[in-house]
Amino acid sequence: MAARHPFLSLQPDEVLFTSQTIRKKYQGRDILFRSIGIKEPPRVQCVAFIQGKGSAPPRRTYVSYQIKGEPTVFEDIIDLSTGDTFQSRDLGTTCYPPATNFDMYRLEDIVMNDPLVQAEIARLKLPEGAVVQPEPWPYGTESATPEKRQYQVWMFLKSLDPAARDHPSSNHFAHPLDFSVVVDDLTMKVIRIDRLPMTPEEIYVNEEAAAKRTWQRNPDAEYASDLQPKLRDDLKPIHISQPEGVSFSVSEDEVVEWQKWRFHVDFNWREGVVLRDITYDGRPTFYRLSLAEMTVPYGDPRVPYHRKSAYDLGEGGAGCTSNDLELGCDCLGAIRYFDRWMNDHEGKPLTLRNAICMHEVDNGIGWKHTNYRTGRAEVTRNRELVIQTIMTISNYEYILQWIFDTAANIHYEVRATGIMSLVPADQSVEHDMNYGSLVSPGVMAPIHQHIFCLRLDPAIDSYDESKIMYEDVKAHGWNAAANPYGVAFGVESTAIDRESFLDLDAKLNRAVKVVNPNRKNAASHKPPGYKVAVPPTQLQLADPGSMHTLRAEFADHHFYFTRHDEDELYPAGEFPWQHTGGTGVRTWAARKRELGPGEGVVWCTFSFTHVPRPEDWPVMPVEIFRVGLKPVNFFEKNPALDVPSSKQSVNKSVEISRSQRELDLRQKECCG
Amino acid sequence: MAARHPFLSLQPDEVLFTSQTIRKKYQGRDILFRSIGIKEPPRVQCVAFIQGKGSAPPRRTYVSYQIKGEPTVFEDIIDLSTGDTFQSRDLGTTCYPPATNFDMYRLEDIVMNDPLVQAEIARLKLPEGAVVQPEPWPYGTESATPEKRQYQVWMFLKSLDPAARDHPSSNHFAHPLDFSVVVDDLTMKVIRIDRLPMTPEEIYVNEEAAAKRTWQRNPDAEYASDLQPKLRDDLKPIHISQPEGVSFSVSEDEVVEWQKWRFHVDFNWREGVVLRDITYDGRPTFYRLSLAEMTVPYGDPRVPYHRKSAYDLGEGGAGCTSNDLELGCDCLGAIRYFDRWMNDHEGKPLTLRNAICMHEVDNGIGWKHTNYRTGRAEVTRNRELVIQTIMTISNYEYILQWIFDTAANIHYEVRATGIMSLVPADQSVEHDMNYGSLVSPGVMAPIHQHIFCLRLDPAIDSYDESKIMYEDVKAHGWNAAANPYGVAFGVESTAIDRESFLDLDAKLNRAVKVVNPNRKNAASHKPPGYKVAVPPTQLQLADPGSMHTLRAEFADHHFYFTRHDEDELYPAGEFPWQHTGGTGVRTWAARKRELGPGEGVVWCTFSFTHVPRPEDWPVMPVEIFRVGLKPVNFFEKNPALDVPSSKQSVNKSVEISRSQRELDLRQKECCG
Repeated sequence: MAARHPFLSLQPDEVLFTSQTIRKKYQGRDILFRSIGIKEPPRVQCVAFIQGKGSAPPRRTYVSYQIKGEPTVFEDIIDLSTGDTFQSRDLGTTCYPPATNFDMYRLEDIVMNDPLVQAEIARLKLPEGAVVQPEPWPYGTESATPEKRQYQVWMFLKSLDPAARDHPSSNHFAHPLDFSVVVDDLTMKVIRIDRLPMTPEEIYVNEEAAAKRTWQRNPDAEYASDLQPKLRDDLKPIHISQPEGVSFSVSEDEVVEWQKWRFHVDFNWREGVVLRDITYDGRPTFYRLSLAEMTVPYGDPRVPYHRKSAYDLGEGGAGCTSNDLELGCDCLGAIRYFDRWMNDHEGKPLTLRNAICMHEVDNGIGWKHTNYRTGRAEVTRNRELVIQTIMTISNYEYILQWIFDTAANIHYEVRATGIMSLVPADQSVEHDMNYGSLVSPGVMAPIHQHIFCLRLDPAIDSYDESKIMYEDVKAHGWNAAANPYGVAFGVESTAIDRESFLDLDAKLNRAVKVVNPNRKNAASHKPPGYKVAVPPTQLQLADPGSMHTLRAEFADHHFYFTRHDEDELYPAGEFPWQHTGGTGVRTWAARKRELGPGEGVVWCTFSFTHVPRPEDWPVMPVEIFRVGLKPVNFFEKNPALDVPSSKQSVNKSVEISRSQRELDLRQKECCG
Repeated sequence: MAARHPFLSLQPDEVLFTSQTIRKKYQGRDILFRSIGIKEPPRVQCVAFIQGKGSAPPRRTYVSYQIKGEPTVFEDIIDLSTGDTFQSRDLGTTCYPPATNFDMYRLEDIVMNDPLVQAEIARLKLPEGAVVQPEPWPYGTESATPEKRQYQVWMFLKSLDPAARDHPSSNHFAHPLDFSVVVDDLTMKVIRIDRLPMTPEEIYVNEEAAAKRTWQRNPDAEYASDLQPKLRDDLKPIHISQPEGVSFSVSEDEVVEWQKWRFHVDFNWREGVVLRDITYDGRPTFYRLSLAEMTVPYGDPRVPYHRKSAYDLGEGGAGCTSNDLELGCDCLGAIRYFDRWMNDHEGKPLTLRNAICMHEVDNGIGWKHTNYRTGRAEVTRNRELVIQTIMTISNYEYILQWIFDTAANIHYEVRATGIMSLVPADQSVEHDMNYGSLVSPGVMAPIHQHIFCLRLDPAIDSYDESKIMYEDVKAHGWNAAANPYGVAFGVESTAIDRESFLDLDAKLNRAVKVVNPNRKNAASHKPPGYKVAVPPTQLQLADPGSMHTLRAEFADHHFYFTRHDEDELYPAGEFPWQHTGGTGVRTWAARKRELGPGEGVVWCTFSFTHVPRPEDWPVMPVEIFRVGLKPVNFFEKNPALDVPSSKQSVNKSVEISRSQRELDLRQKECCG
């Protein structure tokens, strides 16, 4: 296959070539293809290539697969130019690649056709026309002894109203059933029914009582617009247009150029969008930026909810669950869509249509100053370029955006929305033991955290000189000679020279920076850098010895720092499904190896603790979180100084008329 | 004068009536009018009126004034219907009303014509054509002994290039001179020259050396667009339009209605926009919302910078410094402007033209869920209504916004921009002792904090039942019976029953809530409320015993809670100018009085610590901060559920064409 840019995302012919290579190797065997992705070449080779000092490194894919019906998972690395197998790993039976929609559909059939499940449904005495809807989840980990790969399938009922039941957005989550189903991944057989607790005090379900429980009818709670009794009719349209076209360009190699920024929009099934080789005005800033993992631990202690701790990237994938984004729905304005590709179970390429969208946004004023003496205002707009994917992971949505702006900032924005994970409650229950909220009769939303981890691979003005440091702002303390009025405070900088971790502290205004110590800003005489602007958020709440904490190696500190390694991209390990920990960023940081120039990678953890509200039901309004990467001493003046003034002749705004009283006052003022 | 709505902002005829009343009282005397504002009637009277249980309370103004040339400040409260003086206070000589632009202009002349100043200018040996620009500031407080009212005037030079010098946005801040001027407010005479330190180690200026210093020429640093060598020319316009008009309405009484929200846009010279009686779907939420104070302490310990701690509301005013907002510059789209009024020194009404603007914004996705089985996405937009003022306080700008959205949230957003306060440095200096940053040869920006305080007067579903509480999210701790897997965490609620303070803690995810304990949400069985969503930020860094800390009574804790009182609106006291503390929210909270139903007021402090960067020079890109007020148990489901779907037929977006490679792949996929 022809040489391609190392940062070009996986192409459909590469999927096919890869699976054909595996098929050749196992002629006659039936292969179950798990995931296929680009095996990224070493940074040193890519850097040589982009600097024109070397040829394009060989393009390779990794492919994880099983022989159908056999538990062992293999992973090969295939050289796409030669078809050679570069590396082959037998991952044994304890490494579980993520589930796919294919698994999810299969599971629904398996569950619904199982006699154990049918017996449970019979016990419930459901009414005529009731449609049961299974909802497969990863099983989670409950002990440090590796278990076989399993699914935990939660059970729901669709609305009994045929109009709602048959609607493509029918919300079965309003009707959780009182049992769940455990399925063996290898045999794809139901191995157990787990009946669910129905009161908040029932840590272990009362099996005797549970065997006699029957169904309680909950009210419907539909979120589809056309199932609402009444929609508001007084929201007038806003149109956003770019009559002269957009300000960005995209090359055939998927390089985006916009307002001095230049970067590659890489993508994979797991991390979704990965930005590569981000330069500003020709100066490198970051080599690679990605959302690396996410965990969603639940605070409900009742069995079997104790296992609930989803890893929405490593167990699911931000790329492969990306929505087909729709014009005029997910963004407003002039939108550029990108398709991306993954594999199906047969090794055929699968197109993720409109997986990414890109567009410009006017985000208010960029800078302003008015000289009060002359009344003259100078004002510019803050223009942003947004690169967006939206992932649907079962019930939940994450709107994920990388955002560039005209002041040389990069932001990562997460909007959490979708439907909360819900559990059944006896309708007589009116309390929640403070670990959740009843959102509707018979439906409880347990408290949970969303803990995200960004991987930041810096390249500050160079691909091999970046260093990591952190800065605190501290009071100087009263001192008759140096601080006679007790007002002084200043910055205290500390270098991060070894693999380690760090926690934020609002009291210290602590911030992590990546800098190039070999260069000096001509204005400040300080090294150029980028600061990670992120407020401290709550870290993993589960007990330090719990499986949740052991597995989520990134979730116990706001920052980890490790030595760059192409094989260390995932902070909770390569295969978090039912993992027991020991292969993520906490383990790597414990090596405490020195971080030489250009070697350090920054892992940034942020979270939101979701205390559920009825307002989040049946679909939740977006919860928004932004992390900033801001230049500090990278420029000698405001990089947005050359943004043209904000002018009515360009912006074409419209004034809405004033009230008669206001007009009269203006008239009076002007003419007595 | 005719009865008016108690929440109608100060009208021009009321200014005139007030000053005429004072003039009558002091016939023959020359009156210097400081500030005139509406004296808000007691909440109980206003509530009776808005509930139709009482007539409009008498409309009154307060007016602070001096007999010209005399130091004593008086404040009268005038009944506008009768002309009676309702109350009269002799504030003595130690209460200083804020400066106004009138003072600022006067000071420039006084300083420039003073022989002491002329001698300093002569010492500097400035070149031909040099234009000196004084920049008056409040003096600040340096001792607990009350001083006479003074100004500290910083001195700058305009550009020597005539094109820049004569430009209405000429940036004199690039050329700080090495001395400042202290002026007595009463006599309006220069009383002293303070020479400025020129090295970071010079805590007290070396007077002998300073007497011999001459001028050093700094490079210009102009921010005006038409003074830039080159503007970027590749930013294509974005047009925002509302072809069917806007979704809001404004009554003659200045009541805004939008998307179930209804509120009055009140305004005064000090707090700027004050929102009154905010209801959602007819249900009260907050009685009054305002930015109540702001302090900007500097961390530079050198004399005379140790005094620098501006109170941009109580010493200046968010209302009276508000910009005349310009169509197509400060906002994009369909904009409604509001004029507002204040007084001049003669007691005449002064129009603040376009002091407020209001418009709708599309803020991305509001909620979304895709049923992965059917591929059907339900998606709505998050529409916001923005009420904006922009204040210019000497060198600096604050863009202040109250924002309502379709999910029943209220946000307060601050964007800090403008020009940092700058001090001179010897051009040989290449370090900053970590309490600032050199931004240009000869110019240092000292480190500082911006500490804001919001006053939140709640009315949750009632005007007299609200209570305050806070919630922490805590791990339950391993327990074989109740938490056998160590995963549990939950909410711990604590009532605020007395006047007190509270600090946030990210480790606890702590949040303050206002609730109505007499009502119960039918879904959650919990009291309806609103949560203050604000991350912990760094509090006052100056020493606890320093004047900065003594004065900024709100700046040492994230929250204060006090009993409602119409006379306690300003958390650093009524007159912060050279104040020594003892009359603000810290003092009130120390009373520890009980907070009965409907009595509690919440004071919310947030800050950003500004470590200056060259990137903030000569004008800084916006630093954005948002505080949320979010409904919790106020609704029984997502209040945005009835927002119509986001549709291309309404939104009219445009797709930007794909690359040939992508089109080829689509073609191939579809047709083999």
